[in-house]
Amino acid sequence: MFSGAQISLYPMTGDFVAVIMSALKALDPYRDRLRIETDDISTLLVGPPELLFPALRDVFTAAARTGVHSVLSAAISRGCPGEPDDAICQSQHLAGPMLPLAERQESALAAVSSAPETDVFSVAQFSLYVMGQDRHMDEIYGCIDFLKASGTFEASKHFATKLSGDTGALFATLEQAFCRFGPPEGHVTIDLTVSANSPSAR
Amino acid sequence: MFSGAQISLYPMTGDFVAVIMSALKALDPYRDRLRIETDDISTLLVGPPELLFPALRDVFTAAARTGVHSVLSAAISRGCPGEPDDAICQSQHLAGPMLPLAERQESALAAVSSAPETDVFSVAQFSLYVMGQDRHMDEIYGCIDFLKASGTFEASKHFATKLSGDTGALFATLEQAFCRFGPPEGHVTIDLTVSANSPSAR
Repeated sequence: MFSGAQISLYPMTGDFVAVIMSALKALDPYRDRLRIETDDISTLLVGPPELLFPALRDVFTAAARTGVHSVLSAAISRGCPGEPDDAICQSQHLAGPMLPLAERQESALAAVSSAPETDVFSVAQFSLYVMGQDRHMDEIYGCIDFLKASGTFEASKHFATKLSGDTGALFATLEQAFCRFGPPEGHVTIDLTVSANSPSAR
Repeated sequence: MFSGAQISLYPMTGDFVAVIMSALKALDPYRDRLRIETDDISTLLVGPPELLFPALRDVFTAAARTGVHSVLSAAISRGCPGEPDDAICQSQHLAGPMLPLAERQESALAAVSSAPETDVFSVAQFSLYVMGQDRHMDEIYGCIDFLKASGTFEASKHFATKLSGDTGALFATLEQAFCRFGPPEGHVTIDLTVSANSPSAR
């Protein structure tokens, strides 16, 4: 199994470099357990979902706390058949057989309800893609049912689902959507946008 | 068939609202042929790929011409089984049967070589997802072969391919990747990031 994300942080300020460099310090506690590489368009994080989503949450929360309108964009992937196995990606979340949908939904809801609070409000929009099987939409609909019950659901949109709430609950919801739907060994991806401090009317 | 995108523009300046509002004027010539709706996190464009990609190109080019470091992020989709058919999405690109891979690669290269130039340099990173069939990676590898011959290829990365070059050629490459790989009636998506004027060392 190989899992990780290409992530980018966009602070809407002329001082964006300082906000990005400061927020990236939030990755320091993860550096021994995630492989991290940066180029001019994104930062690669390689590691298991149970580290990846908290790391994303902490980077984004650090940027949002500056008060600057900031967006995190991420392409998150697990199980891509084109990627090599990597021991750093070993995951408790993706071990074992695929349980019945109702059990997975119940575990996902329990995980979201025990998520730590950040006291930072944000909005997320994401698409979950389950590749390589004929009945991929059954897993998507099962995930949408979970999202609607998660407490973070805001709206279904074309191509995406919108969430809002405490940033801790949002990233817990995203982690559960990523890990609990689609086969544990399957190829699953998320296209994610998270936004805070937008001046747009809500 | 239903096709379109959720797009967001991120100008890295305190004056981001002005840059966004000005760049969105580039959508005006498309407004009678695309359905366009904006909320606080993204703008929805509904319409066929042959309008969608030029519209994205024009919005992004307008933002990039300001000289501000700007990023366009988009979740682009066609053929999602959960979306309704819509007459506005009727596409010449997706009519007819699925041709052999080599023919599709040849047509794609011809389209990129005749793309209009914008004289704006940009960098793109994207992932192509082909859903609902067991052999989805064959189409992905066929697309990657096309990309490597397109003249815009920069690098293969984990989870994504990086392109660079004239913004006209970039969006032509993306349009071809989206339309020519995966079945014409299939569910295909792209997770896209395009960046210009980044101060990061290249």
